[in-house]
Amino acid sequence: MSQNPVPHLTELLAGSPSNWGKWGANDEVGALNYLDAGQVLRGAAEIRSGKTFTLQVQIGHPHGDPAFPGPRGPATRVNIMDRGNYLSGTGTVFPGGLEFADDMIVMYLQGSSQYDALGHLWYGDQIYNGFPAESTSGRMAKASVLPIAEKGIAGRGILLDMARHRGKEYLDKGETFDHEDLMAAAAAQGCEIRPRDILLVRTGWLGYFYSTPREEFYEGFIEPGLTYSPELVEWFQKMEIPNLVTDTIANEVTTDPVSGVTLPLHNALMRNLGVTFAEIIALDALAADCAEDGQYTFLYTAAPLKVVDGTGAPVNPLVVK
Amino acid sequence: MSQNPVPHLTELLAGSPSNWGKWGANDEVGALNYLDAGQVLRGAAEIRSGKTFTLQVQIGHPHGDPAFPGPRGPATRVNIMDRGNYLSGTGTVFPGGLEFADDMIVMYLQGSSQYDALGHLWYGDQIYNGFPAESTSGRMAKASVLPIAEKGIAGRGILLDMARHRGKEYLDKGETFDHEDLMAAAAAQGCEIRPRDILLVRTGWLGYFYSTPREEFYEGFIEPGLTYSPELVEWFQKMEIPNLVTDTIANEVTTDPVSGVTLPLHNALMRNLGVTFAEIIALDALAADCAEDGQYTFLYTAAPLKVVDGTGAPVNPLVVK
Amino acid sequence: MSQNPVPHLTELLAGSPSNWGKWGANDEVGALNYLDAGQVLRGAAEIRSGKTFTLQVQIGHPHGDPAFPGPRGPATRVNIMDRGNYLSGTGTVFPGGLEFADDMIVMYLQGSSQYDALGHLWYGDQIYNGFPAESTSGRMAKASVLPIAEKGIAGRGILLDMARHRGKEYLDKGETFDHEDLMAAAAAQGCEIRPRDILLVRTGWLGYFYSTPREEFYEGFIEPGLTYSPELVEWFQKMEIPNLVTDTIANEVTTDPVSGVTLPLHNALMRNLGVTFAEIIALDALAADCAEDGQYTFLYTAAPLKVVDGTGAPVNPLVVK
Amino acid sequence: MSQNPVPHLTELLAGSPSNWGKWGANDEVGALNYLDAGQVLRGAAEIRSGKTFTLQVQIGHPHGDPAFPGPRGPATRVNIMDRGNYLSGTGTVFPGGLEFADDMIVMYLQGSSQYDALGHLWYGDQIYNGFPAESTSGRMAKASVLPIAEKGIAGRGILLDMARHRGKEYLDKGETFDHEDLMAAAAAQGCEIRPRDILLVRTGWLGYFYSTPREEFYEGFIEPGLTYSPELVEWFQKMEIPNLVTDTIANEVTTDPVSGVTLPLHNALMRNLGVTFAEIIALDALAADCAEDGQYTFLYTAAPLKVVDGTGAPVNPLVVK
Repeated sequence: MSQNPVPHLTELLAGSPSNWGKWGANDEVGALNYLDAGQVLRGAAEIRSGKTFTLQVQIGHPHGDPAFPGPRGPATRVNIMDRGNYLSGTGTVFPGGLEFADDMIVMYLQGSSQYDALGHLWYGDQIYNGFPAESTSGRMAKASVLPIAEKGIAGRGILLDMARHRGKEYLDKGETFDHEDLMAAAAAQGCEIRPRDILLVRTGWLGYFYSTPREEFYEGFIEPGLTYSPELVEWFQKMEIPNLVTDTIANEVTTDPVSGVTLPLHNALMRNLGVTFAEIIALDALAADCAEDGQYTFLYTAAPLKVVDGTGAPVNPLVVK
Repeated sequence: MSQNPVPHLTELLAGSPSNWGKWGANDEVGALNYLDAGQVLRGAAEIRSGKTFTLQVQIGHPHGDPAFPGPRGPATRVNIMDRGNYLSGTGTVFPGGLEFADDMIVMYLQGSSQYDALGHLWYGDQIYNGFPAESTSGRMAKASVLPIAEKGIAGRGILLDMARHRGKEYLDKGETFDHEDLMAAAAAQGCEIRPRDILLVRTGWLGYFYSTPREEFYEGFIEPGLTYSPELVEWFQKMEIPNLVTDTIANEVTTDPVSGVTLPLHNALMRNLGVTFAEIIALDALAADCAEDGQYTFLYTAAPLKVVDGTGAPVNPLVVK
Repeated sequence: MSQNPVPHLTELLAGSPSNWGKWGANDEVGALNYLDAGQVLRGAAEIRSGKTFTLQVQIGHPHGDPAFPGPRGPATRVNIMDRGNYLSGTGTVFPGGLEFADDMIVMYLQGSSQYDALGHLWYGDQIYNGFPAESTSGRMAKASVLPIAEKGIAGRGILLDMARHRGKEYLDKGETFDHEDLMAAAAAQGCEIRPRDILLVRTGWLGYFYSTPREEFYEGFIEPGLTYSPELVEWFQKMEIPNLVTDTIANEVTTDPVSGVTLPLHNALMRNLGVTFAEIIALDALAADCAEDGQYTFLYTAAPLKVVDGTGAPVNPLVVK
Repeated sequence: MSQNPVPHLTELLAGSPSNWGKWGANDEVGALNYLDAGQVLRGAAEIRSGKTFTLQVQIGHPHGDPAFPGPRGPATRVNIMDRGNYLSGTGTVFPGGLEFADDMIVMYLQGSSQYDALGHLWYGDQIYNGFPAESTSGRMAKASVLPIAEKGIAGRGILLDMARHRGKEYLDKGETFDHEDLMAAAAAQGCEIRPRDILLVRTGWLGYFYSTPREEFYEGFIEPGLTYSPELVEWFQKMEIPNLVTDTIANEVTTDPVSGVTLPLHNALMRNLGVTFAEIIALDALAADCAEDGQYTFLYTAAPLKVVDGTGAPVNPLVVK
């Protein structure tokens, strides 16, 4: 990491491109605007075999669930009615004798596979599209996950298997790559990243999470991932990438090794360009299938929960090949 | 309603068809097994314009959220970090100056648009596929929503707009219809229900919910919907319907007007045949579009959250026309 | 209410007495400092018959629980283990065959009988003792309920039964009284408010709550209670009152009828003088007993839960006569 | 531990004394019935110096909170309003300018210092007083913590400092003692256990908890504590002990070293005799003071929260010396 003082994002991203205002002063879905009906058809055109894949991690996995270090703890799911009530004579009785089970959950909205609201993260005094950062207080009044969930995501997805490309089960802690690497991986896979593609970038990191003691996983927490450069940001902008989907918790190398800044791409891509981020997305099964049949492109669909005022929402994306 | 004593479901459904064992002794997804790759392709073949619709109701709507009467209360979403923390000097600080908002939620798993686990409801001592009802206690150890969420749902969906068919904004409390009515509605729409179609049945009921004082909506609670008959059950079985999706809270008339039994179709279709139920699904916008362009069939995709041991899970289905 | 513009608290309470710094720059328990060992003994000296009373309202009362209008909803208590699990074969098994029941709760910390943290409420930029208001953000880092709970409250309590004094079952909405009325009530009861007494003021309001439809109770929400005057504040200061305990949700008339200011006494007494406030305290049974035996003074003990960083905490005070 | 098969509690406690029916068929507070007004006065008579001690552990201690191994996790406290909202312009505005902070909590009712409901634990088909074990399902309909909280606890408490008595900072894992040891400790302290005394037994165990890595604390989980014998049970019965209070999580040696049975005293004393159990009670500060002034007896007061249907409830006992 740099010996120099860590610059503020305002400085690091001075002159970085912005899409604020591009889709109107009230826009809350950003680069998802690229995904018009034509893009949906382009995605649907990739359907060949009818194979499907769901990409959420389990909520309540015995190993524990992956989450960014901090207050986010595991979900708590509790039954409020089940057979035990009926055996005990305390179940709700209905004419005809039906019985049922019911439950509730306490969870962090970003504690599983999830879409970030565009306002989830920012620097300076403004979130995406110039809304004041104060609009996040108490509830996300602007650029919440709700408009994203109302719109939904459907388009041409392309899997970029960086782990396989580098001949690894999973990338190392802090290992980086950039847009050139993504293009090289695509080429090696025999496909090509096209404008408005939804990028699914696999590092193998979730496989590492589930096979590793938690202490070891979180020690010196630094994920592998994309790393900031002005060129990468320009490439996302030029390619009109609507959505970045990865199998890491935060979609980029946690700390930029050049500047020392934490999560600069969230700011350059999400806050400034409105690129939506889907995080903690399970890609191993899909990737194995792509490696087998050689088809790395598909219809990608995702619809996070419509949580009013949410900073993010859990999602179970569904891919159709 | 019948003056006779209400029969037990064991009696009412004696001789009713069953799919237990059909897909193996360990099957937990039931009629979703009908949705093989060929069915996915059949659904994808309906895509024409690239229009998309998301079908979840909002979690935390200002009017309150629809739920079956009982303990299920509204979701509680709470920020745990936001701009206010940073203005106060109590936000988590990162190199480079990024700030973020975060939140958690407390909710009933069946308190919004949702897929029932096949084991969610039963009569006698067994849930779907003959698993003991005791397996629901504490957690849904068998036929939980997890396998449904792992598989995901994709196939040819068909909207059956019963409200429009009957020239109403929404059906009345307790108003019923059956499979013959569904077929008539399809015919009136210029389409046809085909084997293995995913049925989306619109009653207009959620529109009624959101435009009506809660006291009035819940008074003498009885929803409109499909009503039990042996013929209807045979039709679902013969047609190999994988999934029943409606805009009511419980997918059928709450109390069977003939027998007086509560929710017999949950038992005849879900418990016995393994038909998956998606409830509280918002169909008004989709229906308006179908009425306009005359296309009532489409690719229906849905992937409820992968909640381990869940009796159900929230979902935001996504339709591609 | 005043036709004049409502003054800011800064203006209303200009020149109002303050105890900031009186017990040191780090003090977080305020007027509870008055309750030294001598005061505990003075309280204990009131014990005569050995009768005891617990003063919390029930958490989860069938009628619903009293709370200030706003987001605070009812508590949710859920079993996570019980006999039903054992009947189902899913209970935790221990050698020897013991079985158990267990549960969890979701609740607002100020949604039942409760002590306010001294920092719970403020005006301007500072909470009690001059701590910056920013110290409340995310967690109550200063003047939380924890130091109050660590110290506990024990001293001479005196019941002032304003409802009986005025010959009413309960005071009217918005009905007010002041320190002169408290002294008059004491005199009528044959007792006297002495320095450092813990004041338990009964309005009958909780009895009204539990016997009234919620809509009626909350309509035009304005509680009866003490009303602000500079003289009243001086009296509390001179009398060194450590703790004000009432059977209303907010311990004072909700809106000051003279100035139109909301809850000025919370600010004049709690924020400025450090008087602790206990709210939603059930006094009817105690009052009936006092009326019967003529003993209105007693040992009052209370120990709210030691919630780290809490803005308040539930409490079940215990009185010994 | 015994090489013999572990007996069932029905066998181990055959012939063990019972108080079922002693205080009526509907009694739900058991041995607390011993604590009549006379006992309260006897407790009050021990007050000498006016010193007070609160005995709850903190909810949300940085080290983590002590709880019996199993599903009980730490409490989650979250602000729902604070200064940050006001700085952001999203705080609730009131005439006069008051601002406030508010919060909520999610917690296990037995996850902190707590009183067990008498029905919390049982063997066979019945809980305390012969109520059917089925009455625990869904909610504790009988012998919940509510009647205990309604009554409250006040009486003569006596601290029995087993750790000091044995010259240790804290007892070892699995270290046992019995009623003879309690009497010996009392004698060494220069006092005497009298009928109807509330027993506060200190092992130093909570001090060990807070100073030890959690992994080490929970490894091979077995607490020190009282150990079962028929004589000990007879002694509690003869002495009419109303309440056993300890600084361990479960008030007795976790596994009886003779029989191998888990928690037999919960069954012999709580289920059969109705002795109330207060667990995870912090006694170190009180004990240090007793050692210094030589006064080991005092007025003990405790009033757990009035949680309707609760299996237990958090409590912050308050001792007056």
